[in-house]
Amino acid sequence: MEGFNLELSDQPESLEQILVDCRDTLKYGVRTGHPRFFNQLSTGLDIIGLAGEWLTSTANTNMFTYEIAPVFVLMEQLTLKKMREIIGWPSGEGDGIFSPGGAISNMYSVMIARYKYFPEVKTKGMSAAPRLVLFTSELSHYSIKKAGAALGFGSENVVLLSTDERGRVIPADLEAKILDVKQKGYHPLFVNATAGSTVYGAFDPINEIADICEKYNMWLHVDGAWGGGLLMSRKHRHKFSGVERANSVTWNPHKMMGVPLQCSAILVREKGILAGCNSMCAGYLFQPDKQYDVSYDTGDKAIQCGRHVDIFKFWLMWKAKGTIGFEQHIDKCLDLSQYLYDKIRNREGYEMVFEGVPQHTNVCFWYIPPSLRGMEHNSKEYREKLHKVAPNIKAMMMESGTTMVGYQPQGQKVNFFRMVISNPAALQSDIDFLIDEIERLGHDL
Amino acid sequence: MEGFNLELSDQPESLEQILVDCRDTLKYGVRTGHPRFFNQLSTGLDIIGLAGEWLTSTANTNMFTYEIAPVFVLMEQLTLKKMREIIGWPSGEGDGIFSPGGAISNMYSVMIARYKYFPEVKTKGMSAAPRLVLFTSELSHYSIKKAGAALGFGSENVVLLSTDERGRVIPADLEAKILDVKQKGYHPLFVNATAGSTVYGAFDPINEIADICEKYNMWLHVDGAWGGGLLMSRKHRHKFSGVERANSVTWNPHKMMGVPLQCSAILVREKGILAGCNSMCAGYLFQPDKQYDVSYDTGDKAIQCGRHVDIFKFWLMWKAKGTIGFEQHIDKCLDLSQYLYDKIRNREGYEMVFEGVPQHTNVCFWYIPPSLRGMEHNSKEYREKLHKVAPNIKAMMMESGTTMVGYQPQGQKVNFFRMVISNPAALQSDIDFLIDEIERLGHDL
Repeated sequence: MEGFNLELSDQPESLEQILVDCRDTLKYGVRTGHPRFFNQLSTGLDIIGLAGEWLTSTANTNMFTYEIAPVFVLMEQLTLKKMREIIGWPSGEGDGIFSPGGAISNMYSVMIARYKYFPEVKTKGMSAAPRLVLFTSELSHYSIKKAGAALGFGSENVVLLSTDERGRVIPADLEAKILDVKQKGYHPLFVNATAGSTVYGAFDPINEIADICEKYNMWLHVDGAWGGGLLMSRKHRHKFSGVERANSVTWNPHKMMGVPLQCSAILVREKGILAGCNSMCAGYLFQPDKQYDVSYDTGDKAIQCGRHVDIFKFWLMWKAKGTIGFEQHIDKCLDLSQYLYDKIRNREGYEMVFEGVPQHTNVCFWYIPPSLRGMEHNSKEYREKLHKVAPNIKAMMMESGTTMVGYQPQGQKVNFFRMVISNPAALQSDIDFLIDEIERLGHDL
Repeated sequence: MEGFNLELSDQPESLEQILVDCRDTLKYGVRTGHPRFFNQLSTGLDIIGLAGEWLTSTANTNMFTYEIAPVFVLMEQLTLKKMREIIGWPSGEGDGIFSPGGAISNMYSVMIARYKYFPEVKTKGMSAAPRLVLFTSELSHYSIKKAGAALGFGSENVVLLSTDERGRVIPADLEAKILDVKQKGYHPLFVNATAGSTVYGAFDPINEIADICEKYNMWLHVDGAWGGGLLMSRKHRHKFSGVERANSVTWNPHKMMGVPLQCSAILVREKGILAGCNSMCAGYLFQPDKQYDVSYDTGDKAIQCGRHVDIFKFWLMWKAKGTIGFEQHIDKCLDLSQYLYDKIRNREGYEMVFEGVPQHTNVCFWYIPPSLRGMEHNSKEYREKLHKVAPNIKAMMMESGTTMVGYQPQGQKVNFFRMVISNPAALQSDIDFLIDEIERLGHDL
């Protein structure tokens, strides 16, 4: 803030100053497109996607009605249909919408499930239903809990499921918890199965969860915000086995598929229910007496009114790369994470958070500086010291400006690094660099 | 769809074809930046705003943490502070966030109000509170009702308030309905006052509504999604008189201020409550042991996780125009709507939906073709014929590609045109053209 005057004034700045401001904004920003930026699930900068976003801004329109976004509405409809086919739902059925991010897409799934089983909640509120309970992995994204709080279920009615050593939901635990909830007289409504968890990259066993959902007549949502891209890969899509049995799926092309932010889809197997859940039939926007088929107006399906055009960049990238281009992108990133895993799992100074081949590109590990090696792992001193290693190394990385990678604690586990790769521009040499950099910065801790 | 292959394939397209696709996308799109595009509240194409959006796409980052969007996070903080000062709240207090559109901003206000009075709903759900009731004008935007449905209140617990001849809430009706709700044993929670209604451009009397909210200890939200820009005008901001008494305000710079889509802010008078309402403290994203002040991380305030950078284009426009530039923009658009009103109110073949100087740029009117003039206004035949005039004229406008303006029915009123002006590039000659075009296309109906 010292070198950059951010204050807004009554009087206009000169064009020269505006250009300086633009340069400074980029200068002090973080290069999320750099192949050594591993900090987030969304990385990279696809040049066709960027061109698509520039054209989108130039068109500066709104997705709510066909009359002001005819091309984009058709592109969205067609792309969502293609995504549903890839999921494996019967063609010609289903619905979906692009939303401002995976958390909102997941929120949609909870709303639609509630509408399916208790449609009167829309008009009468939560008091028209019994106490409704949602189930999700203890390692799932926090947006399910957030949706539970926002939509009036209450976060305590989001039951967290235990996971196995690889971070996957244990189906028997789900069934036991459903029975427990039923015994209390509450209504088990919804299960979220995560396909690619945020930290571990774990895939919950969808088929086994689907069996339980069918048995107890519950809504099955698959949160594939992070994992969704793997559906494009013949080699990796088996991790989604059973996804065609889901009632709804979240899939964020802005994560593993490298589409510029934002681009997230909520896909629904049953036709009509999305509009049923959300429509309010506003007369000023969705006039029934237009000169075209108003079923192309998408606005009344959304919880938004105006809606940003998120489709064009994605559609254009798909055109330019083809389905096989996305497949190559996915396979390449997963190969690279395998390279990282193979490189560090037996290397001195590293300890893996869990064993086994990465299911997604997530590789979770501790770096143990020489001063800590050989200490008793369960001692309080060791744990306290190790807890500080990742934050310290990351702080030095950020000061050096060389690379960036995330860390976090998880349950009883002290801070560890979570490496993820979603940028197809990343190379083995970038992975090598990361390892060298961690060791350079962490050696004397 | 005939002239444009939208289908997605396995194989990539050539770069030449991608360029053709881009040209076709623009060719078949709607020119929302054209000065004769009057169809929506968001129009125009500000070149600095567009440059800002291009730079934003290039930076391709995410607002949730300071560490990956340091400049944008600071810009957002500073701009929200400036907006709160313009509202008139005590400086140094308050909070806010940019959200994906006015409907979501309004949804935030309802969530925050609920959290303020019944914080236990966050964890325990709606059953922890009495039956909660929201109040809003019968002419307010449908997003309040949508929020009521989504958040578990139920749309029937959104009570619609009667309006006067100009479309403003009648305060006595609000008080009567509050008493009625209390008598039934329900809890009146929240009042939405609209500052610039979607169809009529009406401003509800904020001060009188604020008196009632204080008396009954209720949350006052001001939906200034459309009207917000008028706060920048010394000549017009008196229409917001009392806004400083509101607990929260929605203000969409992407409407009246011409910022490219999307750019909407929810502003809150009380500090801390936004985070209190929404935080879930996800460990993988909001680590407390970062090397910077983590109060700059905005993500846990949001109902989203990832959040698009909507601030830069707005900040850059503000820098380039100054506050006085926005003021001139607003005043110019309001002058132009006055010009339209003066031109048609006594012109043959026009009837105003309500009398009196426009409060915003909304001018609502019927065009009466010669064949209908002199007919009995209350006859069924007249009403049925008049109801079809605006849709017919609009369909012809769209086929001619000359101009575009919205219409809708409202209550007992048959379809009428709603003119709005938010593009500072529009001139008196564009208004003249519109009138001529309506008469040209409607003359023989």
